[in-house]
Amino acid sequence: MTLSLSSTNRPASDVPHQNGWRGLIEAYRPYLPVTDRTPVITLHEGNTPLIPVPSIAAVIGKQVQVWVKYDGLNPTGSFKDRGMTMAVSKAKEDGAEVVICASTGNTSAAAAAYARRAGMQSYVLIPDGYVALGKLAQALLYGAEVLAIKGNFDRALAIVREMADHYPVTLVNSVNPYRLEGQKTAAFEVVDVLGDAPDWLCIPVGNAGNITAYWMGFCQYHQEGRSTRLPKMMGFQALGASPLVSGQPVEHPDTIATAIRIGNPASWHQAVAVRDASQGEFNAVTDTEILDAYRLLASQEGIFCEPASAASVAGLLKVKDRVPVGAKIVCVLTGNGLKDPDTAINHCQNQFKTGIEPNQTAVAQVMGF
Amino acid sequence: MTLSLSSTNRPASDVPHQNGWRGLIEAYRPYLPVTDRTPVITLHEGNTPLIPVPSIAAVIGKQVQVWVKYDGLNPTGSFKDRGMTMAVSKAKEDGAEVVICASTGNTSAAAAAYARRAGMQSYVLIPDGYVALGKLAQALLYGAEVLAIKGNFDRALAIVREMADHYPVTLVNSVNPYRLEGQKTAAFEVVDVLGDAPDWLCIPVGNAGNITAYWMGFCQYHQEGRSTRLPKMMGFQALGASPLVSGQPVEHPDTIATAIRIGNPASWHQAVAVRDASQGEFNAVTDTEILDAYRLLASQEGIFCEPASAASVAGLLKVKDRVPVGAKIVCVLTGNGLKDPDTAINHCQNQFKTGIEPNQTAVAQVMGF
Repeated sequence: MTLSLSSTNRPASDVPHQNGWRGLIEAYRPYLPVTDRTPVITLHEGNTPLIPVPSIAAVIGKQVQVWVKYDGLNPTGSFKDRGMTMAVSKAKEDGAEVVICASTGNTSAAAAAYARRAGMQSYVLIPDGYVALGKLAQALLYGAEVLAIKGNFDRALAIVREMADHYPVTLVNSVNPYRLEGQKTAAFEVVDVLGDAPDWLCIPVGNAGNITAYWMGFCQYHQEGRSTRLPKMMGFQALGASPLVSGQPVEHPDTIATAIRIGNPASWHQAVAVRDASQGEFNAVTDTEILDAYRLLASQEGIFCEPASAASVAGLLKVKDRVPVGAKIVCVLTGNGLKDPDTAINHCQNQFKTGIEPNQTAVAQVMGF
Repeated sequence: MTLSLSSTNRPASDVPHQNGWRGLIEAYRPYLPVTDRTPVITLHEGNTPLIPVPSIAAVIGKQVQVWVKYDGLNPTGSFKDRGMTMAVSKAKEDGAEVVICASTGNTSAAAAAYARRAGMQSYVLIPDGYVALGKLAQALLYGAEVLAIKGNFDRALAIVREMADHYPVTLVNSVNPYRLEGQKTAAFEVVDVLGDAPDWLCIPVGNAGNITAYWMGFCQYHQEGRSTRLPKMMGFQALGASPLVSGQPVEHPDTIATAIRIGNPASWHQAVAVRDASQGEFNAVTDTEILDAYRLLASQEGIFCEPASAASVAGLLKVKDRVPVGAKIVCVLTGNGLKDPDTAINHCQNQFKTGIEPNQTAVAQVMGF
C-alpha cells in the first residue's frame, strides 16, 4: 500500500513500532493543518474499504464499474470520525477541556468517543422529548453528558454556538472548520486505491458538508498531481428533504433517511459551487427508492449501510441512463447499518419460518429438496 | 504498509487497479489453502485497527503497553467475517449453491452476507421461540432464510450437520475447517503491526475456535521466521459459562455476554492444547467485571465493543498482578458494540438531563460554569 505519506512525529513511547494504519492524520499529515505540536487523537479512523459492487454495475450495464466507499466501518460507525479526529486534535492542541455539539445522531457519537479518548468532557444538546434514547445509546456509553432543552433543534444549535463564544468549550458541529479538513481524506483514499479520481462520485447530501469536503480532497490531490482528473459530483437528497434540488429551504423535512433529514443545509452555498465546478447534479430520490437500494446492497452485495447512505446508490440507479459507457463510479456509504436496526427489522422482505418439526426431512422440505 | 504479500490472480475486469487492502485472502494468500482457481468472495474483511489503550495500561502500571485488536470493524461487525470469507470462497470453488448454519448471532450475519455476495442461498436454523427478532435483523436483511425448529440449539446444530451430509448444502458453522484458517490471519495482522508477537494475547473464549485460530496463526508466522517469539495465550470466559476453567461442561450457561454463552465448546481439546503449549491460562470473569471493562473501553478509550469482547480486557485487569514488567499485551475485541444496543442503553451510567430552559445561562449552569 502506498497510502502512508509520512512517518510519525510522536514519541516512541506513545506509539510503539507499528507498520499498520494509524489514522488519517498520520497518513495524510502533509495535506492537513497539523504540526509537530498537534496531539493526534485517533481511533485509527479512515482507510475504509472501497468495495466493488458488481450487481449494481450489472443493473446499469454499459461496462461501468461501481464501488462503494464503506465509511460505516469507521470506529464509531460513520464518516463523522474523519472530521472528529481533526476537530478534537486541534481542540486539544488549543488546550480545550470541553467539547459541545447539538446532534441527535452520528455527530454526537463521534464527538463523545474522540473527546473522551482525549480526556475531555463531551456535552450533547438535543431537543427535549424529541429523540428516542436508542439513538443516543452510543454517545451515552462513550461518556457524553446529554442535555435536553425545552426548544427545537435550531435553538439547541444556537445555544451551543453561544456557549462556544462565551465559555471555554469547543464547538464540534459542522461549523468547526477542521471537520471538513478531516473529511476530505476520504477523497484521497478513493484516488489512492483507484489510481485516479473516478468519473462520478455519488453521495448522499443532507447538511452538504461531506460533498464539500470530498470536492476539497479531489481538488487538492489534483493540484498536487496525484490524479489526472476531477469527478462529476452527483449529490442525492431524500425527496422529502431536498432543498438543494428545489432551491428552497424545507421547513418540515421528512424522510426515513434520518441522517439526511435536513431542510436548510449549513453548507448550501459551498455545495452549489461544487455542483457547478464539477458539472455535477443534485437529484432527489424517494424513500421507496432509498429502501430498495438499501435492501439491494445488503441482499446482493453483503453490505449493510444506514438508509441515508443508500441514497447514493438509489440516486445512481435513478439516473443510470445518463451514465457514460465504461464509467468508473464511486458511491459513498456514510454510515453503518447497525446504527439503525429498527429499519432493518421493518424492511427485510424474506421469510422467517417458524414451527418447523425438528428433523432432517421437515427441514429439507422447507428448503425445497 | 507491508501486509500485501501477493498480487491478485483475478482477471482485471473483475477487480480493477487497486492499491488498497483487498481482503485477507489476497493479503495472506501464501498462508491459506487457496489456489488460482479459488473464487475470492470478499468484503475486504481484516486489516482491522490495533489501537493503543493507554488508560488500560495505566491501571496495570509496570510500563506495560496494551492494544486492542478491534475486530468489530469487520464488514458485518465481528471476527466471524475472517472465517467466512474462506469458508464461502471454498464452498463456491466446490460448486456449492447453498450454505447453512445454526446460529443466533454473529455467525448467521457473516454467513448470510458472504453467501449472498457469492450468489448463493443462505439458511439459518434457530430454536423456535428462543431468539428475539432483533438479533436476526442483520442476517434477514442480508437475505438469509431463517428457519425456526421446534427444538433446542443442539438439535438445530445436529440437523444442519445432517443436512450437509445428505444434501448439496455447505455447513459453515465452526466445524467447517476453513473458518479457523481465515481467523488465524488476525494473528498475522497483530505481528505485522507490532513487528513481533506480543507477550500476552488476551481473548474471550466461548466455542474456543478463535483462541485456537490465533495460536495457529502465531505458530505459522513463528515457523516462517516472521516473529521471534510466541505469546502466552490468556483465555477468559464468563463465570456463568466457564467450562474450560472448571473442566466440566455447563448445562445451562448464563451470562450477559451472549457471544460466549456456551457450555460445551466445540474446540475444547484444541483450546486446552493451546493453553498448555503457550504456558497460558484460562480464567473466569464475572458479568460485573465484563460490564465494567465494557464501560471503561467506551468512556475512556472511545471504543465500543460487544459485552463478550470486553471479557478480554476484564480478564487482563483481573490478573494484572501477574503481568510482567514492560509486557506488550494485545486484547482481542471480537464484535462491534452496535450489535447490542440494548446493553449500551441499560448500562450507561452518565446522566441524561431533561427539561433545561432553552438559553445560554441555564445550559452554562448545568455544565458547571
